[in-house]
Amino acid sequence: MLAIGDELLSGRTKDRNIAHLAQVLTLAGLDLREVRIVPDVEDEIVAALNALRARHDFVFTSGGIGPTHDDITADAVGRAFALAVEPHPEAERRLAAYYEGRSLPFTEARRRMTRTPRGATLIDNPVSVAPGFRVENVFVMAGVPGIFTAMLDNVLPTLPAGPVMTSVAIPCPVGEGDVGGPLGEIQKRHPETAIGSYPKFDGHRCTTELVVRSRSEAARDDAAADIRTMIEGLVAAGAKPA
Amino acid sequence: MLAIGDELLSGRTKDRNIAHLAQVLTLAGLDLREVRIVPDVEDEIVAALNALRARHDFVFTSGGIGPTHDDITADAVGRAFALAVEPHPEAERRLAAYYEGRSLPFTEARRRMTRTPRGATLIDNPVSVAPGFRVENVFVMAGVPGIFTAMLDNVLPTLPAGPVMTSVAIPCPVGEGDVGGPLGEIQKRHPETAIGSYPKFDGHRCTTELVVRSRSEAARDDAAADIRTMIEGLVAAGAKPA
Repeated sequence: MLAIGDELLSGRTKDRNIAHLAQVLTLAGLDLREVRIVPDVEDEIVAALNALRARHDFVFTSGGIGPTHDDITADAVGRAFALAVEPHPEAERRLAAYYEGRSLPFTEARRRMTRTPRGATLIDNPVSVAPGFRVENVFVMAGVPGIFTAMLDNVLPTLPAGPVMTSVAIPCPVGEGDVGGPLGEIQKRHPETAIGSYPKFDGHRCTTELVVRSRSEAARDDAAADIRTMIEGLVAAGAKPA
Repeated sequence: MLAIGDELLSGRTKDRNIAHLAQVLTLAGLDLREVRIVPDVEDEIVAALNALRARHDFVFTSGGIGPTHDDITADAVGRAFALAVEPHPEAERRLAAYYEGRSLPFTEARRRMTRTPRGATLIDNPVSVAPGFRVENVFVMAGVPGIFTAMLDNVLPTLPAGPVMTSVAIPCPVGEGDVGGPLGEIQKRHPETAIGSYPKFDGHRCTTELVVRSRSEAARDDAAADIRTMIEGLVAAGAKPA
């Protein structure tokens, strides 16, 4: 994913799209592999997009497709793909009808939102009409969370879904420092799983939450059983929160 | 910034450190220029870290410095700098005293948290003692938000503070599409400022929030005055929310 916008890097806006995309892709059986956040600077958007689209099956961008001077994502995507950026006829039709219905002028600024790299496929925007677009493996979407979410809902059915990654979370009443050694051994014995260890700090003492993720339910449950046995052993041996 | 952790990419954990770092750096007069989120995969951490530390004055990392098998940040940083990773004597002393005071065994897993690239400077951790560390322009900190925040508090006074970027937010009662044209002209006339335009959607109609950011208060106020004049003109001409 490529999140675009000065406001994300200045702290003015807290991004909400990254976590949403992460959750939705995980539910769809797809892995989010990398995220970058870049400012509204064309060179930076182009460089990050070219790196990401070469490395990954799909890239999702958020931000920079509105009508103002700081909305430069369409131009950056066009440059990344060496495609001319021009008004998309279907986007023009939709926006002209929308503004006519609202008795708003179809200003030059609003017309900016019809511009896409040549040959782009539109992504419907049921919230405020101005569409996102797809070029090859790159999906260009809005930064406003309600619109990003709605566009993503329209994109998801077009993606190949993988076997779903499921997870089990296992609370562990001792600190990570007691868990680390034996847990590493369990991870080695269950290569089909990804076992994560997360400290839980209540302000006084640390316990641990252990999470087993896998595309195979059997592998997940096998690893989880080993982890539960490990915890019983640690507690029986007197291990406590750290 | 480099945020490290499978849990951020799976959607299991919503990152809170990026927005915090962004706000704190902005207040200190420093610009956050780029963020990457990568999984707990050593090659990916090394590649991202080497890209970021070559491009930027400072890099801040979060995550992966705990005691378990998925905590591989110290090794990745060592590899990025081609430095051996070994127990840091002062970190050993602090953690040995801490666990002795808590009557907890100083396990092999806990000893992992004393490992740093050779020559690293420690970053104090007033929450749970296990330190972060600095190697050249890279600050390696914990992923748990309370600890990340505390470590950052200790790092900030060591950074050169720049002239503070200040901002003014100006509510604008018309849609971005009416603002886009004249606002672009104002941006051109005020190159010392960065003017952002953010749609505000109340579920029915869009207004706009305009934000002027600058390291010069005079430049900021000049641009803000032009924007207020622009808004008065638009409203007088009958512009409305979109």
